[in-house]
Amino acid sequence: MDLIQIASIIGAEFDGENFEITGMNTLKDASKTELSFVSNSKYLKDIQNSNAGAIIVDNNTKEYIPDGCRALVVDFPYWQMATLSKYFAPKIEDETLPHAKIGEGTQISQKAEIAKGAVIGKNCMIMAHVYIGANAFIGDNTVLYPSVTVYRDCKIGSGCIIHANTTVGSDGFGFATNKMGEHKKIYQNGNVVIEDDVEIGSSTAIDRAAFGTTLIKKGVRIDNLVQVGHNCVIGEYSVLVSQSGISGSTTMGRNVVMGGQSATAGHLSIAPFTTLAARSGVTKSIQKSGLTFAGFPLMEHRLWLKLQAKIAKLIQ
Amino acid sequence: MDLIQIASIIGAEFDGENFEITGMNTLKDASKTELSFVSNSKYLKDIQNSNAGAIIVDNNTKEYIPDGCRALVVDFPYWQMATLSKYFAPKIEDETLPHAKIGEGTQISQKAEIAKGAVIGKNCMIMAHVYIGANAFIGDNTVLYPSVTVYRDCKIGSGCIIHANTTVGSDGFGFATNKMGEHKKIYQNGNVVIEDDVEIGSSTAIDRAAFGTTLIKKGVRIDNLVQVGHNCVIGEYSVLVSQSGISGSTTMGRNVVMGGQSATAGHLSIAPFTTLAARSGVTKSIQKSGLTFAGFPLMEHRLWLKLQAKIAKLIQ
Amino acid sequence: MDLIQIASIIGAEFDGENFEITGMNTLKDASKTELSFVSNSKYLKDIQNSNAGAIIVDNNTKEYIPDGCRALVVDFPYWQMATLSKYFAPKIEDETLPHAKIGEGTQISQKAEIAKGAVIGKNCMIMAHVYIGANAFIGDNTVLYPSVTVYRDCKIGSGCIIHANTTVGSDGFGFATNKMGEHKKIYQNGNVVIEDDVEIGSSTAIDRAAFGTTLIKKGVRIDNLVQVGHNCVIGEYSVLVSQSGISGSTTMGRNVVMGGQSATAGHLSIAPFTTLAARSGVTKSIQKSGLTFAGFPLMEHRLWLKLQAKIAKLIQ
Repeated sequence: MDLIQIASIIGAEFDGENFEITGMNTLKDASKTELSFVSNSKYLKDIQNSNAGAIIVDNNTKEYIPDGCRALVVDFPYWQMATLSKYFAPKIEDETLPHAKIGEGTQISQKAEIAKGAVIGKNCMIMAHVYIGANAFIGDNTVLYPSVTVYRDCKIGSGCIIHANTTVGSDGFGFATNKMGEHKKIYQNGNVVIEDDVEIGSSTAIDRAAFGTTLIKKGVRIDNLVQVGHNCVIGEYSVLVSQSGISGSTTMGRNVVMGGQSATAGHLSIAPFTTLAARSGVTKSIQKSGLTFAGFPLMEHRLWLKLQAKIAKLIQ
Repeated sequence: MDLIQIASIIGAEFDGENFEITGMNTLKDASKTELSFVSNSKYLKDIQNSNAGAIIVDNNTKEYIPDGCRALVVDFPYWQMATLSKYFAPKIEDETLPHAKIGEGTQISQKAEIAKGAVIGKNCMIMAHVYIGANAFIGDNTVLYPSVTVYRDCKIGSGCIIHANTTVGSDGFGFATNKMGEHKKIYQNGNVVIEDDVEIGSSTAIDRAAFGTTLIKKGVRIDNLVQVGHNCVIGEYSVLVSQSGISGSTTMGRNVVMGGQSATAGHLSIAPFTTLAARSGVTKSIQKSGLTFAGFPLMEHRLWLKLQAKIAKLIQ
Repeated sequence: MDLIQIASIIGAEFDGENFEITGMNTLKDASKTELSFVSNSKYLKDIQNSNAGAIIVDNNTKEYIPDGCRALVVDFPYWQMATLSKYFAPKIEDETLPHAKIGEGTQISQKAEIAKGAVIGKNCMIMAHVYIGANAFIGDNTVLYPSVTVYRDCKIGSGCIIHANTTVGSDGFGFATNKMGEHKKIYQNGNVVIEDDVEIGSSTAIDRAAFGTTLIKKGVRIDNLVQVGHNCVIGEYSVLVSQSGISGSTTMGRNVVMGGQSATAGHLSIAPFTTLAARSGVTKSIQKSGLTFAGFPLMEHRLWLKLQAKIAKLIQ
């Protein structure tokens, strides 16, 4: 799709040089042939440093567009980005892709479904009612238990175990909302990458990225009923206990431990070797590594214990 | 089943005019051919206004039965209602129903299962390992990702997207308990109705109504791992973030936002445009619209912030 | 596998009498032909009373080994136990087992998968996309809704109902961690036993035991999205409301009620007839039966109400 077509879809002013746009991406990650967007003046710095070929802007932000980048000016850039995301969404399944490739020694149940374009390594066990989507990749020696669903374009490493009824790569919770309170879906055109030696429990949900990748690094352990939002990065050997939840775009270092029912807000950074007690709730980034936190609002665990003692005294 | 049979099953006193009962329902919604029940003297007003053909009562409540309505008198009306609910439960699947009807342009995986009596609209995508139950209805242009289960009699609108491993219409959590602490299932003979343009994440659970309908209105967005109890009504364009939970019979207006891991008790009413911060817990109805709440016990968000500042000072 | 082979795998010192080891178990439950382990000096009493044929110990604990029991001395017993657990893990499916036995009147969807060695009773309904693993046992009159997964060796009683997308018997969240922060899986070689007349909601996860059995007793009611960790025991007629979570090895008496989003830590004992309010968090065992608790930290519900009133006054 070229810029003239795009401008027409979103009703943008545009009269610069026309060229083909290959995809959409964030300001930070977009390349010369990609389209980005800016919805908020707090991202002005990101506009100026963006390599995007074109950016959807409003009247207030258009002046910050760097040289050589085209501006598509609209009233509501975020809403129009949602509009366009649908045009760049790949088909859920694609009959024109090559037949799935299956490595030697891999057992696939006749009741599993492997979409075209998938590649599965050696000595895997793909059990009944598993679904592996278009262009998905599974490494060697990986076990997918019944009813695991892997959406298109997602990659799972070698030596992984994923338990029953878990979903890898469902759409992130992304939508734009207009002044009428109506929502428009932001198609989630990124993927999930799970590195080697990761184990994931049952009925856990790991969302694909809006753009780019939701990344689960090597050796991570995820329990049952855990939520990992779109574009998160989970550091090596981190441990996510049952019913914990990580909101979108939060990044954690290695060996972070999240206790049961703990949670983080989105767009945070959590230092390596952080321990979050059960039920703790993180709303700010954690810079210093190796500490243990508890509570909501969050505080260091030793302070939380002291505070609870004080609170208990209120009724003495 | 007629009243004499019903009285015999539950050991009720009954000697009035016999007639055929077509189903069970709440005091408020029961019609002339339906049976209702009253388990609690706080519903006395509902008895007096009920159009039910017959009502299961105990000795304390029988005198409130309106004229023309039959009383079935037992010691434990709620327990006997549970007993009877099984007799009115439709079969899970029914071979006598007509073959499913599938609209033009709809793709159905050969590994999906569509029960008899189902009706599916045009241009849908029904992926592998989906189950669509007896008499279920799916509108046009709707996508059901792998391992979505839609129980019998449930209806899903047009333009909906439901992600993998989500369940629509499983039984509400209903049972009667006797003095021995034993439970008896209340068969959930209602359904779920999801209106148009609704998106639901993965591993979410939406329970069917005990009687009547659990209703998800137009444009709602539901994230992963969310619980919607039986007989809830979710208003248009409401947003339920991951791991939030709504107990049975709670009704919310349009554009309510429930943050991650927030929850409501049952039988509440939540005003339109209410925002519930992450982890908040609602135990009373919210009458005034447009406010933001937090905490458990719940309070206005600005008060919660103030309170947390005070609490933090306890350890200074 | 005999002791010399085992010693070789884990690099243990061993020069006693060699014999065949039939499995691994806890200090308390291991028999004369089983191997156990001790990782922590707080279990010294359990060592002395153990009937295990051999125990993996470190230099500090080896002197407590009872007469007639062999010691396998290593630096990190828990890590080496994890190493060995893989060798004792049964195959996920086993083609040498006999064909599944299906009772009279049982309906099994052609889209369900029943592994070899399974035994299913009479008049059950096994719906589409269900998976029943090797040697699993299902009693009479039990309904498994679509996409229920029952792992190998698990047992489900008669008259049970399990709703869609629920998992019975996935691996408990068990692993050893070395000084580099790397994890090694502890294969979960136990099972789940669900007694008669139990109903379980949708997308619930019940983990198999590491050794022995995760036990759900007669008449229990479990809602949607509930987590039951490995080796838990849930007492008769207990009620686990949606999104509640029970950590590993916690045992509860009969008629315990856990409210929505409540949770317990692991290795606790909860007295019969305890009621835990919604969102409560239990970190210590509850000895006295019949009480109602709330909050996190947990306290009696009446105190919690009093405390909340005091806390609210902080901002008056």
